[in-house]
Amino acid sequence: MSEIINVSAIAKVEKEKIRKRIESFRSNGKATPTLATVLVGEDPGSVYYMDMQKKVLESLGGTMLKLTLTEDVSEQELLSTIGDLNNDDKVHGIMILFPLPKHIDEHKVAMKISPSKDIDGVNPMNIGLLASTSGGIAPCTPSSVVEILKDTLGELKGKHAVIIGRSNIVGKPLIQLLLREHMTVTVCHSRTRDLKEVARSGEVLISAMGRPKMITEEYVGDGAVVIDVGTSELDGKITGDCDLESVMKKASLVTKVPGGVGTLTTTILMRTLVDLYEKSES
Amino acid sequence: MSEIINVSAIAKVEKEKIRKRIESFRSNGKATPTLATVLVGEDPGSVYYMDMQKKVLESLGGTMLKLTLTEDVSEQELLSTIGDLNNDDKVHGIMILFPLPKHIDEHKVAMKISPSKDIDGVNPMNIGLLASTSGGIAPCTPSSVVEILKDTLGELKGKHAVIIGRSNIVGKPLIQLLLREHMTVTVCHSRTRDLKEVARSGEVLISAMGRPKMITEEYVGDGAVVIDVGTSELDGKITGDCDLESVMKKASLVTKVPGGVGTLTTTILMRTLVDLYEKSES
Repeated sequence: MSEIINVSAIAKVEKEKIRKRIESFRSNGKATPTLATVLVGEDPGSVYYMDMQKKVLESLGGTMLKLTLTEDVSEQELLSTIGDLNNDDKVHGIMILFPLPKHIDEHKVAMKISPSKDIDGVNPMNIGLLASTSGGIAPCTPSSVVEILKDTLGELKGKHAVIIGRSNIVGKPLIQLLLREHMTVTVCHSRTRDLKEVARSGEVLISAMGRPKMITEEYVGDGAVVIDVGTSELDGKITGDCDLESVMKKASLVTKVPGGVGTLTTTILMRTLVDLYEKSES
Repeated sequence: MSEIINVSAIAKVEKEKIRKRIESFRSNGKATPTLATVLVGEDPGSVYYMDMQKKVLESLGGTMLKLTLTEDVSEQELLSTIGDLNNDDKVHGIMILFPLPKHIDEHKVAMKISPSKDIDGVNPMNIGLLASTSGGIAPCTPSSVVEILKDTLGELKGKHAVIIGRSNIVGKPLIQLLLREHMTVTVCHSRTRDLKEVARSGEVLISAMGRPKMITEEYVGDGAVVIDVGTSELDGKITGDCDLESVMKKASLVTKVPGGVGTLTTTILMRTLVDLYEKSES
């Protein structure tokens, strides 16, 4: 029988750990971990995410600095805002909400964030450190996937994971994180031939495509663990990559959407903030 | 029947292209592409590699600056030498021969090389750019593997490659290069379970372990293309990862060692030098 992974239980445990770490800073008379989040324009998804970050962070004892810039802000002004945050000792993490307006080059923005404050690992320096050292900063979504897998499976070493999707924000950093756990890793994407067959070869299947309900039982190996990172809108509802009913005929464990990976990402982001804070203090 | 890939023929064609590019700079009265190679100590492998680089580069019309520092040079002195080369407009590429003496931190050295002159892609900035953009600089060995595959197979899109080995200098950058070619990519390593079975699933198998003759027909899918990146010493001879006779029972095409991938790497390094030169001029 297939079971749904209780991701909010994992998030609850993580939150408790983070809360204790922040409390211990406070009781030692230290500063409060502070995240600066920059929103350009009024993208509703970004506004929602920003408000949720603030709520979660404050519930854990941290502080969030909300910076909102108008849609027509120049690239130069945004870069200079980031420069100020880089130089501000009271700010430990910087998050720029993407997508940005078309007249702003997202690559330049990512390059401008100080690698030591780059909480979602978008600066190529962090991407490179993640790939080539034990350091670097990983984005919160792939980190959340690894957390769920570790909590669910314990030892990951030697297991075969198949990732569908090779985006910079999920698939590619996930390769590096799973290799760190000594998993065998296969990366598939839109050009993969025999996708069903390759997907079935994974003891762990992670889908990060954003194609609602595409993944059916035909993509799932017997007893596989399936992590659904897709979020799309279908008929006005947030929908994952998995056709849950079908997938559950073959999988041993699955995450659902909503109520799955997304339940953990903001918590993991805050854990990264506390990690960056500790590094800045040491 | 299995065939051995004629890598030196591929190198010859590449060399001709590079020679023409350098000639055209000269006939336009421009400077000569110049590589600075830094050797610390007297590691015989590094001395050999340095001399070969010089020979190849000069045969193509380029210039090589050989810098040799004694084994006991301080880290600070080496970093300052690199800083000088970063600032020298007449130098277009910088290569530091690894391994370095134990008292020098290789990571610090890699971080010091200007990303725009980092000819073998060791600076994490280039590793990150390679993973997340269409830019970045790849090390010459994985780039040579891709060149051989393109020359041999033509279209790589959608084909399944299995890489054995996850080093920073071969396996990991190869993941990114093969994803750029839209291949499906599997990465295996010492902790992979059922390695034979996973290896057999590849239409292309790339072995980069340095375990002499470990790869036998049991690791090779019917008609697979096998690229051997291993080089070890066995009984005083340079030996690849493949037991060639055995592998040839199953593979359609194979590279041998010596006389395989290594025949192309210095040429590809020089192609990168010319690319960096052109960027510096533009």
